[in-house]
Amino acid sequence: MAEQTRRGRGRRPAAQVRAEVLAAAGELLLDVGMGAFTFERVAALSGASKVTLYKWWPSKGALALEAYFHAVQQHLEFPDTGDIEADLTAQVRSFIGLLAGRPGAVIRELIGHAQTDPELLNSFRERYSRPRRDLAIAAMRRARERGQIRADVDLEVIVDQLWGAGYHRLLLPDEPLTEQFATALVRNVMAGVGMRHTAASREG
Amino acid sequence: MAEQTRRGRGRRPAAQVRAEVLAAAGELLLDVGMGAFTFERVAALSGASKVTLYKWWPSKGALALEAYFHAVQQHLEFPDTGDIEADLTAQVRSFIGLLAGRPGAVIRELIGHAQTDPELLNSFRERYSRPRRDLAIAAMRRARERGQIRADVDLEVIVDQLWGAGYHRLLLPDEPLTEQFATALVRNVMAGVGMRHTAASREG
Repeated sequence: MAEQTRRGRGRRPAAQVRAEVLAAAGELLLDVGMGAFTFERVAALSGASKVTLYKWWPSKGALALEAYFHAVQQHLEFPDTGDIEADLTAQVRSFIGLLAGRPGAVIRELIGHAQTDPELLNSFRERYSRPRRDLAIAAMRRARERGQIRADVDLEVIVDQLWGAGYHRLLLPDEPLTEQFATALVRNVMAGVGMRHTAASREG
Repeated sequence: MAEQTRRGRGRRPAAQVRAEVLAAAGELLLDVGMGAFTFERVAALSGASKVTLYKWWPSKGALALEAYFHAVQQHLEFPDTGDIEADLTAQVRSFIGLLAGRPGAVIRELIGHAQTDPELLNSFRERYSRPRRDLAIAAMRRARERGQIRADVDLEVIVDQLWGAGYHRLLLPDEPLTEQFATALVRNVMAGVGMRHTAASREG
């Protein structure tokens, strides 16, 4: 059977196999990148059969994407301290830190491949970018209810101006992914850069 | 000789051949996308030989990129009316309009391929993204001298929050590329979204 392990531990529950596969796949992916990431190597590392892997993930891209998500999830939690500027700064700094490190190399390849692989793009959106967008929107909605974000602002646009701006420096690296960049992203959006607001900013 | 045309018009000056190749390549690229874009077809359409093409462009990606740039250049001019918010809005609207149309499909493929093709990425940066970034920075520096942008703002970050945010919706299309989006991008950055600025915004 597919769930029979090579290490002879007998049949493991599917949820456990799945978690072990994702852990092994995530490590492999961050280690070798998309080029050398294969179903064969994940099967060998996790003890699950290739049949099992293909049953759960239709393509290498789909498996890589979910493995990536599991590997970075703990770094991408959304804090909620009641101060939206502080929370966004903490979250965007973590995100930019990931992009600047080894996970960034993987996500570049995933987004790159997704431009000519509609199935991978759909997986990326359904399992990763849309849910993460929704987390950010929920946090900003709470901030709006607390009076920290104006009612007339389209919160979806802010997502593009924080995380999207980060992806921009990852994919077209004309400028570096630094902590200062992360901080400035949030500050610009939250405070505005127009000269007419200077007095208000200093009072605020 | 390489510059000898198939149409028998004799030898054309290199600059003219180059311009004709780029015009033909740009049309082909927007028509068929990267997949069906080949040196053979560009040679046939432009009347230049493949030898000439390879001499000027080391790869299909490099030719496609320069052809794309020539095709869209007229749509991406940077107005300078003295009002930075109006100028940015006009420019970002043109840019988002391009991304939403057929050029967007091409630029998606180019950026996608560039993630696993370092030479294409370097060409993209040298010939396209860096020069366009510099145009935006120059316009914002002039605005700063006119007192329209605060002195303590990192102008490079604004580029990521306007054009980078647009690329984000192109590459990860969770939300649409609309004119309203373009306008909101500029408004958010120029005015800020923090509630504490509302009074100043209304006065401003």
